Amino acid sequence: MTNEVHHGLEGVLAGESAICEVDHKSGGLRYRGYAIEDLAAHASFEEVLYLLLMGSLPNQSALAGFQKGLIGTRAIPEKLFDLLQDISPSVNRMDALRTAVSYLGMGDTDREDNSHTGNLKKAIRLTAQMPALLAALHVFVKEDNSDSPEPAASHAEHLLGILTESKPDAFSIKALEVALILYAEHEMNASTFAARVTASSLSDMHSAVVSGIGTLKGPLHGGANEAVMEMLFKIDQLGDVRIYLADCFAKKERIMGFGHRVLKKGDPRSDIIKQYSKELGERKKETKWYEMSIKIEEIIREEKGFYPNLDFYSASLFYLLGLPAPLYTPLFVCSRVAGWTAHIIEQHDQNRLIRPRCRYTGEKDQTFIPLSGRK
Amino acid sequence: MTNEVHHGLEGVLAGESAICEVDHKSGGLRYRGYAIEDLAAHASFEEVLYLLLMGSLPNQSALAGFQKGLIGTRAIPEKLFDLLQDISPSVNRMDALRTAVSYLGMGDTDREDNSHTGNLKKAIRLTAQMPALLAALHVFVKEDNSDSPEPAASHAEHLLGILTESKPDAFSIKALEVALILYAEHEMNASTFAARVTASSLSDMHSAVVSGIGTLKGPLHGGANEAVMEMLFKIDQLGDVRIYLADCFAKKERIMGFGHRVLKKGDPRSDIIKQYSKELGERKKETKWYEMSIKIEEIIREEKGFYPNLDFYSASLFYLLGLPAPLYTPLFVCSRVAGWTAHIIEQHDQNRLIRPRCRYTGEKDQTFIPLSGRK
Repeated sequence: MTNEVHHGLEGVLAGESAICEVDHKSGGLRYRGYAIEDLAAHASFEEVLYLLLMGSLPNQSALAGFQKGLIGTRAIPEKLFDLLQDISPSVNRMDALRTAVSYLGMGDTDREDNSHTGNLKKAIRLTAQMPALLAALHVFVKEDNSDSPEPAASHAEHLLGILTESKPDAFSIKALEVALILYAEHEMNASTFAARVTASSLSDMHSAVVSGIGTLKGPLHGGANEAVMEMLFKIDQLGDVRIYLADCFAKKERIMGFGHRVLKKGDPRSDIIKQYSKELGERKKETKWYEMSIKIEEIIREEKGFYPNLDFYSASLFYLLGLPAPLYTPLFVCSRVAGWTAHIIEQHDQNRLIRPRCRYTGEKDQTFIPLSGRK
Repeated sequence: MTNEVHHGLEGVLAGESAICEVDHKSGGLRYRGYAIEDLAAHASFEEVLYLLLMGSLPNQSALAGFQKGLIGTRAIPEKLFDLLQDISPSVNRMDALRTAVSYLGMGDTDREDNSHTGNLKKAIRLTAQMPALLAALHVFVKEDNSDSPEPAASHAEHLLGILTESKPDAFSIKALEVALILYAEHEMNASTFAARVTASSLSDMHSAVVSGIGTLKGPLHGGANEAVMEMLFKIDQLGDVRIYLADCFAKKERIMGFGHRVLKKGDPRSDIIKQYSKELGERKKETKWYEMSIKIEEIIREEKGFYPNLDFYSASLFYLLGLPAPLYTPLFVCSRVAGWTAHIIEQHDQNRLIRPRCRYTGEKDQTFIPLSGRK
């Protein structure tokens, strides 16, 4: 044991993983060796999920079987739907989603099976159930639509359809699918790391995913995209961007959606999602959100030297897709559950309990005085 | 960033903390500088909880106010009691407890308040609510007794009374109280670390405690005391200890309740709890569990060189207190919630996002082939 304290474990290699590579030299991001740009442009969310969980891209027949498995496990228990609908709209949707996944864990048929096969089954089922969970948490949806009238719908189409209670157009589906792919995995981020710590005691997959959800909730992690949209709502007019930001700078308020612990030189995912936010705005003839975002990016780059991260342009994208802001972080879960479950499987396959130490900085050798003698 | 991979973060100092000191030289364990032996012998659980949360031992007037606060927040919502009673007895009680605390987090009046004061209020309330949660999870308890007929009862008396639906004797209360004190805190163990990772995204206290529960569930962590009792049930007779263990050794099965990642030379908590297990057996005229335990300890020390940890003798102690085995790990939660919440408060007070890295060991630079071209 060395004496160096690693605050926030910054730069510490907490293990080995074959899932995601952040390449600092090229600024690139790869899932299992595949560039994120190729996956976003040419793959479906289902292909990426398969890649993350199984380690390679599927061929057409493997993908067909995999999709069938996903579609077949989309439903959630009726009791859970009722429980979620009963939750007050004032409750944070991430608190409700954390409770929902914990509840699902109690009833999962493979809940006691931590084998590779058991974990895979649970990973697929949990991912498939996410759209129904989000719909049940969406206060305007009043019916359990998880047995969709479009049973062959892709994951992205199913998700967008169930949340907007409409038949979405092809470009909107593609835009959401790209967001799901970009959010799916990001190495040892805080929520994935929390999930791995939980899994490392040989606890089960649902427990580990619940830890991931609770961690993602925080404003320093997944809570950012919702905060970005709140900022855009507050500014509301392109002409007011500069004065709003000047005020934030004066008050030393943090602008959400910029900077990243690991991606210091820029986030390649931001460039991709930005194009979809732009085109969706043009198609919907509502370009002001994108225009305000561009202006904010310009000023923050100039004055602070920070680059936008994935959360920044996804905010306006999700808004234009008709998705309500309180569901933005749950939508992140809908996607990141792929990465979490891949990491949990990897952790269980080569497990070692994650148990660090800390430097003790408190009082030493206190003399105990019984209660009656304490002043 | 160095290139060394720290598997399981063994020996890595992941931060600073003024809560618990594991002194390797003396083999001692101290909470905020006070020896665990003094606290177990002379303090109440409430004094220890105060010490962990507030940083110093209370005087009589401070303790009286603190106890009043605890007693006043023991009740859980009626809807939650019904929900827990509705859960199948076949469901792991830790899965149910994880769901219960997540549910409580949705309705807590201070849920959005992550300030030091808000966190303290939630820490006290959560600890106070634990006995009612455990009672609701105990399949034989059919009524919500959290508004106890003994409203002035100490935490340990309340907990034992509510779970056994009887008025416990003074020695039994003291024995459970000692167990609660010994289990309350243990530096950067896996569940506490998971709670700190969750809190480090500035997520809330309930989310962090839920991560702790999910992590404690695993057999490499809190699940051990229940496993010890299952072993004692299987052996059943003092004369069968040697043959049972020989069989385990031959099958290379792990014997639970022995060894510790950090306490390599022995666990000072084991010596304390052992005496209570012995005396309780004598008082209850049921000494066989203690006698079998002593024999197991002797053989494991001799053949494997391992020392018993806290979980080993707590198993027989909990059994003699009339507590059912599926509640042993939840009882651990009932106590460790004190340490978790103290660490969450410390994390929020000097926060830094916990976000390590990992070494990438997967495929590099894969060429993307579209689905139609894959074989």
